[in-house]
Amino acid sequence: MKRISLLGASGSIGTQTIDIIREHPSEFQLTAFSVGKNIPYARKIINEFQPELVCVQDQQDYYTLKTEFPHIKCTYGEEGLIETAVYDKSDILVNAVIGSVGLNPTLQAIECGKTIAIANKETLVTAGHLIIEAAKRNQVVLLPVDSEHSAIFQALQGEKEKNIEKLILTASGGSFRDKSRNELENVTVEEALNHPNWSMGAKITIDSATMMNKGLEVIEAHWLFQMPFEKIEVLLHKESIIHSMVEFHDSSIIAQLGTPDMRVPIQYALTYPDRIPLPSANRLNLASVGKLHFQEMDFERFRCLQFAYTAGKIGGTMPTVLNAANEAAVAAFLEGKIRFLQIEDLIEKALTAHHVIENPSLQQIQEVDRETRQYVMSLL
Amino acid sequence: MKRISLLGASGSIGTQTIDIIREHPSEFQLTAFSVGKNIPYARKIINEFQPELVCVQDQQDYYTLKTEFPHIKCTYGEEGLIETAVYDKSDILVNAVIGSVGLNPTLQAIECGKTIAIANKETLVTAGHLIIEAAKRNQVVLLPVDSEHSAIFQALQGEKEKNIEKLILTASGGSFRDKSRNELENVTVEEALNHPNWSMGAKITIDSATMMNKGLEVIEAHWLFQMPFEKIEVLLHKESIIHSMVEFHDSSIIAQLGTPDMRVPIQYALTYPDRIPLPSANRLNLASVGKLHFQEMDFERFRCLQFAYTAGKIGGTMPTVLNAANEAAVAAFLEGKIRFLQIEDLIEKALTAHHVIENPSLQQIQEVDRETRQYVMSLL
Repeated sequence: MKRISLLGASGSIGTQTIDIIREHPSEFQLTAFSVGKNIPYARKIINEFQPELVCVQDQQDYYTLKTEFPHIKCTYGEEGLIETAVYDKSDILVNAVIGSVGLNPTLQAIECGKTIAIANKETLVTAGHLIIEAAKRNQVVLLPVDSEHSAIFQALQGEKEKNIEKLILTASGGSFRDKSRNELENVTVEEALNHPNWSMGAKITIDSATMMNKGLEVIEAHWLFQMPFEKIEVLLHKESIIHSMVEFHDSSIIAQLGTPDMRVPIQYALTYPDRIPLPSANRLNLASVGKLHFQEMDFERFRCLQFAYTAGKIGGTMPTVLNAANEAAVAAFLEGKIRFLQIEDLIEKALTAHHVIENPSLQQIQEVDRETRQYVMSLL
Repeated sequence: MKRISLLGASGSIGTQTIDIIREHPSEFQLTAFSVGKNIPYARKIINEFQPELVCVQDQQDYYTLKTEFPHIKCTYGEEGLIETAVYDKSDILVNAVIGSVGLNPTLQAIECGKTIAIANKETLVTAGHLIIEAAKRNQVVLLPVDSEHSAIFQALQGEKEKNIEKLILTASGGSFRDKSRNELENVTVEEALNHPNWSMGAKITIDSATMMNKGLEVIEAHWLFQMPFEKIEVLLHKESIIHSMVEFHDSSIIAQLGTPDMRVPIQYALTYPDRIPLPSANRLNLASVGKLHFQEMDFERFRCLQFAYTAGKIGGTMPTVLNAANEAAVAAFLEGKIRFLQIEDLIEKALTAHHVIENPSLQQIQEVDRETRQYVMSLL
């Protein structure tokens, strides 16, 4: 029985983690979880799973739940998030919060030696150097949850790092993969939110359309697998069937495939290094799929991916600027304040304006994150 | 430095094994090898690699080489083949002979505890139960060389057998994959020998066209990976880029990919569990390939594959009959004695006529092999 702390239980990864726990009651137990402001959902999860610890975002909601569920330990805010992350009766932390709020809880959990299934991109993108240093020092295993990184992680089982030639991340191309830059001028929020393969949250769906999602994944992969950017490639593969690949120096490529279903990498992180059945999974039938398509990445068409490589190679606080500018710009797009292509423009401006700080501390990262968001908002 | 005994040095797998040894002089040494009747080739290899032991098929050739190379140990015939297989100064045996002549040397090498890279299909197809029993008893590692089995073996690294849902062997479809059965009526030997993806020997190229090659591979996979036939699937994949796959019970699929180049699985067998660079390999570029195609296997179209599943499931001496009848029929086709579709008819007749012996001894296998060939020849 594995006891799980789950940060971000009401998001896309969070609810699918709950699905996996629900499907395997003899394997997993939800011991602690956090939600933001979705209190009806929190109630439902508490009633179903009877966890020991629950964290919410606001103090008011904390009081409400505390009164309703006096036998459960309740907590709130950033402190509460950390408490949930390091909860000592949990065997594994699933960090599925969105945004930079996930960073500190991850660092604290690493210091406590917790195994971490990490779905919170910002953690590695903005503070990869801190996370990896702490993970090494504490001999903590970081388990990827993203389908691409899980694919690479699975492909690397039984293999040696020294034999890797390169990592090949596949990219579906998102909602607008068949549109030219001209056609992107006037696309709407609704069109951008219509991802062809994956059903995900709004932010990541927009990030797929701009290809920034893949850019952030490239930076994640750089840290997670300790690979130079020159050895990380992105390949357009519109079916999202091959989730990613590793090429070895003997030219052999190992790939992980499946229907697009986030529950598979989530479950793999929870059962690693073992696997357990997932009866409800929709199994891949390649004969019915018929064809898989591959295409070279066009960095002119998908400028955000180029930004990510550039920011990643520069390092320091540059990836923090990339991420923060992107979050602010995507929020502005979702609110109808800017057009789709302006997302790129805002990010480019923020990157150009920034004076990089090398090897930044957590505090410096948080400052740059804040400043960047303010800067982008000032441009709106 | 790994010291290698190579049986069948002049065949397709043999020459490519030599290529790998040549490309890595500090990794591999050709310590012993056998050829059939190609003495000029044997001379060339002796001069280039200075092996310690050489085996030829005929006594006359043995005398010739013995005189020419007095400092090298020469040997011949079946005894010589066994001597080469068990040569105690070799670390690994590569068995790349064609046909049932490879069986006894493999068994003897297993009894001597040699690690074996096995490219000789007949060994596992006809005597899988003996080979696997002996390998387990002697704790011998059998390393697959076939691209399909190597792919599965690579996909299984770091994984547990209990988690396998099924093995998926890919099949290019061979020279006639786009022809209907009617169109097969009058195909020529030349057309059959024109394989779209792989450059291989004549026998295996015809076996690819009839799909018997995949049938033999299914039986090999059954023994090599201890998988019931119900858990072995064949998928048409005309590009031969995905060399095979393993599906796990969580629905995740691990595949091995590459350009069709037998040197990759050969080298993997020689370096296992490590990998080393193969600079001369033609690396896969999926973007230039563009599309991969998959199609369900049609057992009516490819009757030989159905025969193989049936013979495999019946077991005992049935796979021996399948293999021997096929060898005799393919030889007859290559000699222009029968038409292409008669290969199937002859195999079917041999299978129907046979009374299966369960759990046969080596001697019984060899007898049934002989009888079957005679029976098929009597039908010509």
